[in-house]
Amino acid sequence: MSTDPTPSDTATLLVSCPDRRGLVAALAQLLYGHGANILDADQHTDTLAGMFFQRIRFDMSEMHTDRVTLERAIAEVAERFRMSWSLRYAADRKRMAIFVSRYDHCLYDLLLRHKAGELICEIPLIVSNHPDLEEVAKQFDIAFHFVPITGKNKREQEEREIGLLRDQNIDLIVLARYMQILSTEFTEAFPARIINIHHSFLPAFVGGKPYHQAYGRGVKLIGATAHYATSDLDEGPIIEQDVIRTSHRDSLDDLVCKGRDVERSVLARAVRWHLEDRVLVYDNRTVVFH
Amino acid sequence: MSTDPTPSDTATLLVSCPDRRGLVAALAQLLYGHGANILDADQHTDTLAGMFFQRIRFDMSEMHTDRVTLERAIAEVAERFRMSWSLRYAADRKRMAIFVSRYDHCLYDLLLRHKAGELICEIPLIVSNHPDLEEVAKQFDIAFHFVPITGKNKREQEEREIGLLRDQNIDLIVLARYMQILSTEFTEAFPARIINIHHSFLPAFVGGKPYHQAYGRGVKLIGATAHYATSDLDEGPIIEQDVIRTSHRDSLDDLVCKGRDVERSVLARAVRWHLEDRVLVYDNRTVVFH
Amino acid sequence: MSTDPTPSDTATLLVSCPDRRGLVAALAQLLYGHGANILDADQHTDTLAGMFFQRIRFDMSEMHTDRVTLERAIAEVAERFRMSWSLRYAADRKRMAIFVSRYDHCLYDLLLRHKAGELICEIPLIVSNHPDLEEVAKQFDIAFHFVPITGKNKREQEEREIGLLRDQNIDLIVLARYMQILSTEFTEAFPARIINIHHSFLPAFVGGKPYHQAYGRGVKLIGATAHYATSDLDEGPIIEQDVIRTSHRDSLDDLVCKGRDVERSVLARAVRWHLEDRVLVYDNRTVVFH
Amino acid sequence: MSTDPTPSDTATLLVSCPDRRGLVAALAQLLYGHGANILDADQHTDTLAGMFFQRIRFDMSEMHTDRVTLERAIAEVAERFRMSWSLRYAADRKRMAIFVSRYDHCLYDLLLRHKAGELICEIPLIVSNHPDLEEVAKQFDIAFHFVPITGKNKREQEEREIGLLRDQNIDLIVLARYMQILSTEFTEAFPARIINIHHSFLPAFVGGKPYHQAYGRGVKLIGATAHYATSDLDEGPIIEQDVIRTSHRDSLDDLVCKGRDVERSVLARAVRWHLEDRVLVYDNRTVVFH
Repeated sequence: MSTDPTPSDTATLLVSCPDRRGLVAALAQLLYGHGANILDADQHTDTLAGMFFQRIRFDMSEMHTDRVTLERAIAEVAERFRMSWSLRYAADRKRMAIFVSRYDHCLYDLLLRHKAGELICEIPLIVSNHPDLEEVAKQFDIAFHFVPITGKNKREQEEREIGLLRDQNIDLIVLARYMQILSTEFTEAFPARIINIHHSFLPAFVGGKPYHQAYGRGVKLIGATAHYATSDLDEGPIIEQDVIRTSHRDSLDDLVCKGRDVERSVLARAVRWHLEDRVLVYDNRTVVFH
Repeated sequence: MSTDPTPSDTATLLVSCPDRRGLVAALAQLLYGHGANILDADQHTDTLAGMFFQRIRFDMSEMHTDRVTLERAIAEVAERFRMSWSLRYAADRKRMAIFVSRYDHCLYDLLLRHKAGELICEIPLIVSNHPDLEEVAKQFDIAFHFVPITGKNKREQEEREIGLLRDQNIDLIVLARYMQILSTEFTEAFPARIINIHHSFLPAFVGGKPYHQAYGRGVKLIGATAHYATSDLDEGPIIEQDVIRTSHRDSLDDLVCKGRDVERSVLARAVRWHLEDRVLVYDNRTVVFH
Repeated sequence: MSTDPTPSDTATLLVSCPDRRGLVAALAQLLYGHGANILDADQHTDTLAGMFFQRIRFDMSEMHTDRVTLERAIAEVAERFRMSWSLRYAADRKRMAIFVSRYDHCLYDLLLRHKAGELICEIPLIVSNHPDLEEVAKQFDIAFHFVPITGKNKREQEEREIGLLRDQNIDLIVLARYMQILSTEFTEAFPARIINIHHSFLPAFVGGKPYHQAYGRGVKLIGATAHYATSDLDEGPIIEQDVIRTSHRDSLDDLVCKGRDVERSVLARAVRWHLEDRVLVYDNRTVVFH
Repeated sequence: MSTDPTPSDTATLLVSCPDRRGLVAALAQLLYGHGANILDADQHTDTLAGMFFQRIRFDMSEMHTDRVTLERAIAEVAERFRMSWSLRYAADRKRMAIFVSRYDHCLYDLLLRHKAGELICEIPLIVSNHPDLEEVAKQFDIAFHFVPITGKNKREQEEREIGLLRDQNIDLIVLARYMQILSTEFTEAFPARIINIHHSFLPAFVGGKPYHQAYGRGVKLIGATAHYATSDLDEGPIIEQDVIRTSHRDSLDDLVCKGRDVERSVLARAVRWHLEDRVLVYDNRTVVFH
């Protein structure tokens, strides 16, 4: 291929299964047989767990067959090798919802990157338990849903949110400094499809007020962690982390300010990798094919 | 000063006290009055704690008075402002002991930096609970003391070590991956004078086997922390920390290997800053004047 | 001082002069005499150049005298020591103009940081040689001046711009990916008051299309450089630089995309340091007191 | 594969060729047909250049056929697809020669990493144009060849060196701060098999005294670059680069000291990747499969 195929003519296959000889050949042969051209392929074998993982991005512009035939063929190979698999067509853009509270730095960052073409997806809605950021949503022409949550109405409000997300066929929920703990029902409704940004280098400083904790301990770096939300708070599979240097000169406010930069860049990378089908989860860990 | 003074003609004053107006002027005036020329001065006010910290390095080559007179003058000002202070003359090199077990990477790194002139100090002895690294000590012409420690003999062996350190007028003890927990008696005998390197980004992964813990949690960065050893294991004041990026491809052995690079550079920086009188401890935190 | 003074009650003194004994004492004494409390002081001696530099931030809330008296006293000391000096009162906010063309990432970043309170200044106007970003200016309620420039009208349009900047008492001009080369007349009208962001790690890849050059050379890191604009293109004193890792997988578009993140963070840091009076220029270099 | 194969039972295939459909399938099928199990595979398509690159590491422990048969089969596929290829068996360790002058930091670093098992290779000889580092060679039991070079004897001495390298079947020559410029004859005798470390972030500061140049320009970061040596000084394909932060406080000596840390880590990574057959060269660039 000396020219880049129209991106919308590509698809990405993610596969995980027990490791076995012939896996790579079987998939490569299958795609070749259908006239697909492999653009990128990356694989990983966890020898400890005996597991094999692969991501294949391929060009469909000269395929001899259609989606249905291709999927049927993959399903057959998958059954033979006991594969879990998912196939995403670039033409079918993922749909992302953003949950926020009052902080706007992660929200702005995601919206600006989306506008700049860095995050390929639709963003049909922003949900918030506070009305403050409606103005930002408007600037970017995105529907804003104000869903206030109290101790009492949490269950019904979450159900309303889940309904909203289902109606909109949401593929990915991003908690962009959303200051409400989701119930187990909610997180289990979207497994490996909710990305949260925690403002510390996990597992240091779990729970609330991590910058206060970091200040108290006198650390020389502060960090941020993007992870899939699970029913165990701050314990979900980590997608990305980063840190920034601090010093004795930094007040608590300075930590919060420096932290914003790390939070938004870590979250943006995690979201991007998820949207590009680069992340596989197993055993509370992630494989991220860069 | 258009030429750099002979470093041995310099001294460094470290000061901490409750914050108050006139502190800076009083010390600057005092040094000027004695004919000392300030080369570097750095200060910090912790407004929350109401504390003031200062480091002043000055040239003594044209001083009108002697050490005794100078120190008496400083003591007077210090009393007036309730200052804690220490004064180190560059001509009196600090004396450092290195404690090791079997890992040689931090030891080699310190010895090579010492040889290259990066760490200005004497290294009169290396202490180990294993005989393995005697050869390295020999290569660098440093006395090696093998002090095996068992559950039973720990108290008496530590007393032997403390005696050795006192005999040699040791100013700084570096635990360069020394795999024995020091008793409270030991750590309290050398407050803020024992630097330990812990192979994680504290407070994440305290205790033993931090690389195993990091592998288990699936983190995307691993770190190292240099801190002063106190009676609370892994809880002493942090001097320096750093991290290195890891991925799903890294086995436990890879983490250990990558970690070695961070451990040695973090430890070297902490040791250097201590030797250059750049570190002040208060409230289980450090002020590090770079 | 156990409580932080109202920031607006503070001032910052920047000083540079030939190195000489008694400098630090003279300034500290002067401020103490007027009842000012030094909050931060940092100094640097370039022994090669024989130059002394100092930044002192002090609290004026309990000063016995007024601005005029203080400034007269500083002027006297300055004359004695042949000091260049500047004094800025926090209460008098700096006024910043932003010049842009079509790229919006640096502009958005500066405006959002300003809104978040990270950049303490007024932003009375945005100037552009293209109409594209007027909408952004509107969102943030800032006057937008469209000043198209052609080969023919450059001189008169620049004069118009200079008039505008003078009318608005602008202290700092930020070229946030402004794609026009300023004339010598323009740069010399605002010495050390124009900050430009160049999208490479200078002095590598000077001139146009640095990402193309970087791609062609196959470098493994790309960078950005914030510097004061002088009449020598890309040769002005460097304030801040940073880099980001790239690989063979990165297309030219990927470099441009990754570069945006470095550009905006490098520019933001340089602007912040300038606004906080942390930068001194001499000999085409900068001293930056962090 | 649930257990890690003995590394000596593995081999690595590196391939580059014009991009074409069926490449991946052909190679995967071939290896599967011989009973090889793919452990790692990474590929890259440069759509601009129309080139395909792949690295495949596979387990040979259950192969049905022998090396000769395998290589013949690869050669056939290679011919069909016009592939350049190389196959390395882990059992046949590469042989590395180190060239040094007077600086010992890169030499020590390589030797210690080799001893720690990070660099899998034989190091049969060290060559130097100065006698100074013979002692270091002795400590690590490696033959030391002192080959002094003057303007007059350069040609004959280089021939002696080339003879030495050929006699010892050297696969890789590492210039570990070797302060002699190699002739075109020398570099062309070992294409993509000589790794040099240059003490700047290329292409900034080519030629001699890069730290002096960096100091003069007032940069805020200094770097190091590992590249394959070619007949164009400092212009060969870049394998790895990194930087370290500097400030106005750093004297020229400080830059040299900080630079040592970057030089040795950048060189070590480049050498390791070369030894692990992760580097492919084309068009004066490198593809590095991490």
